[in-house]
Amino acid sequence: MPKEKLSIVKIGGNIIEDASALEAFLKLFSRLEGKKILVHGGGKRATHIASKLGIESQMVNGRRITDAETLEVITMVYAGLVNKNIVAQLQALRINSIGLTGADANSITSDKRPVKEVDFGFVGDVKSVDYNSVNKLIEADFTPVFCAITHDGKGQLLNTNADTITSQIAIGMSALYETSINYCFELNGVLEDINDKNSVIKHIDTKLYAELLEQGIIADGMLPKLENCFDALNNGVSSINMGNTSMLTQENDNFTTITL
Amino acid sequence: MPKEKLSIVKIGGNIIEDASALEAFLKLFSRLEGKKILVHGGGKRATHIASKLGIESQMVNGRRITDAETLEVITMVYAGLVNKNIVAQLQALRINSIGLTGADANSITSDKRPVKEVDFGFVGDVKSVDYNSVNKLIEADFTPVFCAITHDGKGQLLNTNADTITSQIAIGMSALYETSINYCFELNGVLEDINDKNSVIKHIDTKLYAELLEQGIIADGMLPKLENCFDALNNGVSSINMGNTSMLTQENDNFTTITL
Repeated sequence: MPKEKLSIVKIGGNIIEDASALEAFLKLFSRLEGKKILVHGGGKRATHIASKLGIESQMVNGRRITDAETLEVITMVYAGLVNKNIVAQLQALRINSIGLTGADANSITSDKRPVKEVDFGFVGDVKSVDYNSVNKLIEADFTPVFCAITHDGKGQLLNTNADTITSQIAIGMSALYETSINYCFELNGVLEDINDKNSVIKHIDTKLYAELLEQGIIADGMLPKLENCFDALNNGVSSINMGNTSMLTQENDNFTTITL
Repeated sequence: MPKEKLSIVKIGGNIIEDASALEAFLKLFSRLEGKKILVHGGGKRATHIASKLGIESQMVNGRRITDAETLEVITMVYAGLVNKNIVAQLQALRINSIGLTGADANSITSDKRPVKEVDFGFVGDVKSVDYNSVNKLIEADFTPVFCAITHDGKGQLLNTNADTITSQIAIGMSALYETSINYCFELNGVLEDINDKNSVIKHIDTKLYAELLEQGIIADGMLPKLENCFDALNNGVSSINMGNTSMLTQENDNFTTITL
């Protein structure tokens, strides 16, 4: 028997930080048919509030260090302010959502990243997704809305990359569902020419990915994103779309689909 | 057939703000047998963080006005910082909890308080509890952990009194369960003499309540608490205990039980 479909949609800071863009996105998301999960990043709001509170963001090699104070701010902003406002707005759109961190329903357990050259602080690398626990919520007709926070199972919350959370949830849920991911971001898709926003590569598979890597077309921020995608595809996820939010509608086919 | 029992436990700021008191309480809560729900207040942390962010708490007649900025802080602190740390700690104690506002699972809908002499801002008076929705979580073996935030069903979060949320959840759930409330607070119970912490009145019923009111023994902050209790009892809740957290154990019987 074929598995039922489950769509996992991830939105980033560019949408979170723009109230009207968020409202428009949530309308699209509410109309998406079938079972679904939303994952959101936190954006610059946490940095902004941290700085107002006099907490300086420590950066090492361009990556933020999550000390105890920064984790508090991230927990406030991601799990509180951003997550609960999204949930309230989805309820207004008649989507019965529940906002979650990985601690809620014991859904996502992480290991605190080991200290090597850099001590990233309270950052978690996903260890396991309790897909049965998440599925209890889905089966009860709730739509889970995850923020980018997990826990270590010993009482510690951990800051975790939202793209990784998305792919790990998708991998976990693929035990039960035919799972796809929609990564919504500020570009129309993976671009052949970074200076031409319309140069969307419509379909990337393993073979083309190798070629694009060799040609240096996939670089910088796109590299970890695509590595993350192929990791998900190699671990049970069916397909992944990357593009702007309008790819959730039927009208726009100008985005990137990634398959093995 | 007799209904199954459900315990609803409410803790206030005095426990939230003291890390070791919170840890000790959560251990007691985790050992409490049967189905249960936790409700927590927010305490002074929100005021503290608001003041750090340069947001002044406006008070009218001793009551806080929740303007848009204050609501943001309350959402960050109650639904983010406090709620998610409690959930993570309960997971460490093997209680599979889910942290909720009234927006999550559409569990508690409120009306924004009408403006009369005072505009309280984004404050909600509970209109309805979706006990079937909350029960789906309980039936799936999750322990709901509520913070004192509700929503209006139109996308707006609302600051709501934690004692009222507790009694309204208890009233709602009494359609399905034999529901009791444990209000944990800084006193050993309702005191006959406010200056003698051991003068606990062990049992208050409707008749004694009327007498205590007449004698002026119930006054000030205790008055709305007890009014709230009798409202709950008159609307289906079986019994209510008030006292310090040790009343959750079998060893302490020095607390107040309230029945009709």
